[in-house]
Amino acid sequence: MPRGKPSSQDQALAEPVAGNGLLDRRLLLQQSIALLGAGGLAAMSATPAHAADPPPMSPWMQFPGAGMSGYGSPAKYESKVMRSRIESKPGTTGSGASRTPIEALDGMITPNGLHYERHHSGVPDIDPATHRLLIHGLVKRPLTFTVEALLRYPMVSRIHFLECSGNSNIMYGPTPPALTCGQVHGMVSCSEWTGVPLRLLLEEAGADLTAPWLLAEGADSAAMSRSVPMAKALDDAFLALYQNGERLRPENGYPVRLFLPGYEGNMNVKWLRRLKVTPTPSMTKDETSRYTDLQADGKSLMFTYPMEVKSVITRPSPGVALQGPGLYEVSGIAWSGHGTIKQVEVSADGGQTWAVTALSDPVLPRAVTRFRIAWKWNGAPTVLKSRATDDTGAVQPTRDALVSAHGTNVIFHYNAIQAWQVETTGEVNNVYS
Amino acid sequence: MPRGKPSSQDQALAEPVAGNGLLDRRLLLQQSIALLGAGGLAAMSATPAHAADPPPMSPWMQFPGAGMSGYGSPAKYESKVMRSRIESKPGTTGSGASRTPIEALDGMITPNGLHYERHHSGVPDIDPATHRLLIHGLVKRPLTFTVEALLRYPMVSRIHFLECSGNSNIMYGPTPPALTCGQVHGMVSCSEWTGVPLRLLLEEAGADLTAPWLLAEGADSAAMSRSVPMAKALDDAFLALYQNGERLRPENGYPVRLFLPGYEGNMNVKWLRRLKVTPTPSMTKDETSRYTDLQADGKSLMFTYPMEVKSVITRPSPGVALQGPGLYEVSGIAWSGHGTIKQVEVSADGGQTWAVTALSDPVLPRAVTRFRIAWKWNGAPTVLKSRATDDTGAVQPTRDALVSAHGTNVIFHYNAIQAWQVETTGEVNNVYS
Repeated sequence: MPRGKPSSQDQALAEPVAGNGLLDRRLLLQQSIALLGAGGLAAMSATPAHAADPPPMSPWMQFPGAGMSGYGSPAKYESKVMRSRIESKPGTTGSGASRTPIEALDGMITPNGLHYERHHSGVPDIDPATHRLLIHGLVKRPLTFTVEALLRYPMVSRIHFLECSGNSNIMYGPTPPALTCGQVHGMVSCSEWTGVPLRLLLEEAGADLTAPWLLAEGADSAAMSRSVPMAKALDDAFLALYQNGERLRPENGYPVRLFLPGYEGNMNVKWLRRLKVTPTPSMTKDETSRYTDLQADGKSLMFTYPMEVKSVITRPSPGVALQGPGLYEVSGIAWSGHGTIKQVEVSADGGQTWAVTALSDPVLPRAVTRFRIAWKWNGAPTVLKSRATDDTGAVQPTRDALVSAHGTNVIFHYNAIQAWQVETTGEVNNVYS
Repeated sequence: MPRGKPSSQDQALAEPVAGNGLLDRRLLLQQSIALLGAGGLAAMSATPAHAADPPPMSPWMQFPGAGMSGYGSPAKYESKVMRSRIESKPGTTGSGASRTPIEALDGMITPNGLHYERHHSGVPDIDPATHRLLIHGLVKRPLTFTVEALLRYPMVSRIHFLECSGNSNIMYGPTPPALTCGQVHGMVSCSEWTGVPLRLLLEEAGADLTAPWLLAEGADSAAMSRSVPMAKALDDAFLALYQNGERLRPENGYPVRLFLPGYEGNMNVKWLRRLKVTPTPSMTKDETSRYTDLQADGKSLMFTYPMEVKSVITRPSPGVALQGPGLYEVSGIAWSGHGTIKQVEVSADGGQTWAVTALSDPVLPRAVTRFRIAWKWNGAPTVLKSRATDDTGAVQPTRDALVSAHGTNVIFHYNAIQAWQVETTGEVNNVYS
């Protein structure tokens, strides 16, 4: 397993595969950067040391540390890593949103404490002992389920992203916002969700499975309600009870939420209290007065469910600067509500040339996928971009193409390629390019 | 997609596949229990409802809920779901362990707040700005890395379990402990870990990759130290910086820990401050006076690194009782430090007959794998067991076989089949069987 000198094949990997210093993704997959020259990155980031043995004791080694705890918390030194751009409508405390600080995270999973939020009238304080779920409408046996009853059913576990359909919508504006990556694009998160397949519960109620629609209603004071296609309900929908192993967090719908993999966030109705099987869509306020996509011609698209293929570079990004010329990993996340991420490309020359990145396993349908590529920055200003493709063949559009197709009246389903301007200082700025 | 009456093939799925009511795993995979008869589970767990539309408003729908927050917490109603059986050595506060409440969780991921703990002198309060990692010994260029320097390197993300080698060791005792599943077996957790491949850093330091060993030392006041085979270091070892997306928690080694997939927990040295390339193992106190496996003949096994193939049923389990005869999902977790879980079988008749369970995707190497199977309990007392097999062909042993091979002096590497006695009341007790 130990390896000697880099082979000539390895040396070839050190040659750029696209303009302005992007290196072959196999460089990362082989977990070797020796071929970039001894101490290539260490020369910039590490310090030559004496071989002194052992090094001096750190202060925290000189006395016993803290004890065990019932439920842990992040390190105090990471207290700035919080949900950000917390906004609520004037006169309300809980009608609004908070964003995941995706520029400070890595991997595919979002820790529960940092999952983005979007509430229409705040987070209800629901006692699970008295919460009920009613299944009625076009069913033979209307049924009421306690949470305890739901917990008894067979479950499925799946890793899926959730994205608010309004995520990134500030990018429809005339000028690129000077915000962090998470503040712009952080209404997307990814968790392992566990719950009961909706099909089971519909069968239990003797639902008319040929009825084309269901109404899903939440137990918040907005009674957030959406019409759900029966086809989706019978396909991969489930009622989520667990999130990353533990029971749902209050802000994610405790004690039970609807989960519709790949569909826009609000369709995944939180604090679910009612499912009604219906012959038509219910045309709730949440699908007529909002969550419709106003086009340039004044018409609106309705029932635009799946979130489109999308990606963004999280490192570097605004506030996550480069520290002088040299080797870097460019890293980010990609996802598609239509299926599985097939490829993510990165450009270091503003989109003239593109290099294929390495995707971190497991690459799963309707889940966040982490991409990585090595980049030798020469210190000159340039523009970084990422472009995702999913397994339906859908490719992330440019901002110009998206705006040209849908106009700028729309405030939903923004999925255009993000351009980050890298300055000579290493600072990164949001640009339209 | 809508389906009509169960086919005769479906009906066959409702027939037991092993003794005492275990049903075909395809029953769960097809997400249908209609074939068990209309209202089969609902009859026991749900309540017939009027088709009243809408149902009365719950109290929490009558006023706006709480606002957004920077970092979320579990629901107050789940406050009993905590790490448990917190034990520390007399006279210390932080030399001990806490366990993940696996009986209260589902899926494969453990939320960071509930990851098990095992500390040898408590959790040090390490300032990441002044923490340093030294790589020295048989290297051409001894190097000191800041945390910031480490964060600049190319990373990998992988979902892996961690298990303390002392997990479940109370089961070596003469009588089965009356504890919950987590209190007995909860020193295992599973997270997505992200960090820098160790190979990269060794290459940067010009390490002699033919040297067979490294010493890894932690910055806790116990200076927890283990010898690590170079072969593992060059294979899949990495320095973890992130855990389930966010930076490591203090109790998991913040700001940086060694990660050796599949190896016993303490080898994954937390608060890592030193890696020394050495010609021999260092014979530290942590691998001579402890973490050796005392056999019946008085000899000890040393350097027993990978955790063996293992599984346990988490639901039902002690404290997670059955509510009368009827249909249940039997669910649990399996893992192996040697590779990927290939199969988990469950017995509902004390081990006379076994049924193959459904495994939740993704099934990953050296990761927790969730298994599920449907079971029709007839109300009679019986014994439930689970038995895991990994892709090396290793099969989880019976307790008798384990004790016969290794004796009861040993306090590590307990991986025997767990037997749960189901009483007529539905209560579950730990038994040796």
